[in-house]
Amino acid sequence: MNPTSALASLTHLRIVLVETSHPGNLGAVARAMKVMGLSDLRLVNPKCDIDDEARARASGAVDVLETARVHDSLDAALADTMLAAACTSRRRDLPHPAYTPRQAAPQLLQHAMQAPVAVVFGSETFGLSNDQLMRCRWLLNIPANPDYASLNLGAAVQVLAYELRSTAEDRTLDLPAFDAAPHAAVESLLSELERGLVDIAFLDPQHPKRLMPRLRRFFARAGLEKEEVAIWRGIIAKLRTPDR
Amino acid sequence: MNPTSALASLTHLRIVLVETSHPGNLGAVARAMKVMGLSDLRLVNPKCDIDDEARARASGAVDVLETARVHDSLDAALADTMLAAACTSRRRDLPHPAYTPRQAAPQLLQHAMQAPVAVVFGSETFGLSNDQLMRCRWLLNIPANPDYASLNLGAAVQVLAYELRSTAEDRTLDLPAFDAAPHAAVESLLSELERGLVDIAFLDPQHPKRLMPRLRRFFARAGLEKEEVAIWRGIIAKLRTPDR
Repeated sequence: MNPTSALASLTHLRIVLVETSHPGNLGAVARAMKVMGLSDLRLVNPKCDIDDEARARASGAVDVLETARVHDSLDAALADTMLAAACTSRRRDLPHPAYTPRQAAPQLLQHAMQAPVAVVFGSETFGLSNDQLMRCRWLLNIPANPDYASLNLGAAVQVLAYELRSTAEDRTLDLPAFDAAPHAAVESLLSELERGLVDIAFLDPQHPKRLMPRLRRFFARAGLEKEEVAIWRGIIAKLRTPDR
Repeated sequence: MNPTSALASLTHLRIVLVETSHPGNLGAVARAMKVMGLSDLRLVNPKCDIDDEARARASGAVDVLETARVHDSLDAALADTMLAAACTSRRRDLPHPAYTPRQAAPQLLQHAMQAPVAVVFGSETFGLSNDQLMRCRWLLNIPANPDYASLNLGAAVQVLAYELRSTAEDRTLDLPAFDAAPHAAVESLLSELERGLVDIAFLDPQHPKRLMPRLRRFFARAGLEKEEVAIWRGIIAKLRTPDR
């Protein structure tokens, strides 16, 4: 059954590691995947075992490591995918369209609604060969410092997986609930504040300068909740009729 | 001299690690920063040394490690920043506005055009304390799998740094100018406000309830410009030593 939402389609996003040589990186990749909701890991001719270091770095994502499938060719790992994108820092003289992860993510997710989609990462030392790159339809170039673009393998997978999940998640702002005070209450508060500042001789009504407009701007920027209006009114009342 | 482009403002993005305990994570963070063009690393009470493991994981980013400054308090690491955001997977009962890295990146970069901006990460085991979180104006929640949201520290910094660089490369920023007050000035203002409220008997130090956290939330939401800090300090001074 195909996923019915962009977020569910993350289960169709496959990470393919070609000829990985450091067990720690296998673990880091598994953890990077699971925290973003990915689980389909494929290892093509791995040059190391899933050992204790790999499991330690995987932390709570050992299940992703243990269920990873091993293939003896990139073609085998991609056989049932509908789209494969190669993550590489090199562009070389290749015919592929190249995208940043952000540019590619919507389409990767869209394709993953229908069938598995692969993102392919080469070995730590040699990257992907031209032959391997030719097996992929797209190139993905992660934005990086031109003076030092050497992303660790686990970090590269983390960036990709993050980008996919971020794009998949609804973009509605997750702002805290805000129990806004009505306009009239805010205006009334600002009037009281002005009188209070006159009472304590901070504001000279004959020479008000820009004080109240500045304070008005400040309160406008913050916005006021009902409870905050009550707090400020309490402070101003104290200020106007001190009982000390 | 302040940076003149969003990309250049990455040099004003500071990564602050609080009580980090694994040297490997220090190295991974340095590498994650450098590949995205960040270089300002601060360590608050680190629980480990910069050792061979740290240098090995830093790879070509050993310079970022070696130039990291060590502080004995979070306030010291944030003193000259104009905005600090805490990266946390917890939301708890906190007054802060919370954003995803993607939502926050444009404003973080915009602020960094003018002065240092910090992103703060807690210890691997305990994260950030409520007191440490209260020192930061925003929360950053990295989108993650609700069933396993445990990002490795290096991976979390990688995601943040990637998001900042991606955003810097993608768009021109057009937010209103904001002459923000530095962290230390805001903290000092809040302390004075608290003493002032005690002086006028609005705040009972024996039963403070939630007054200061509520006011802190209000000021954090607004943000404070330098001139506004001066205005509020003037008001508080008047309030504490009335001449009427």
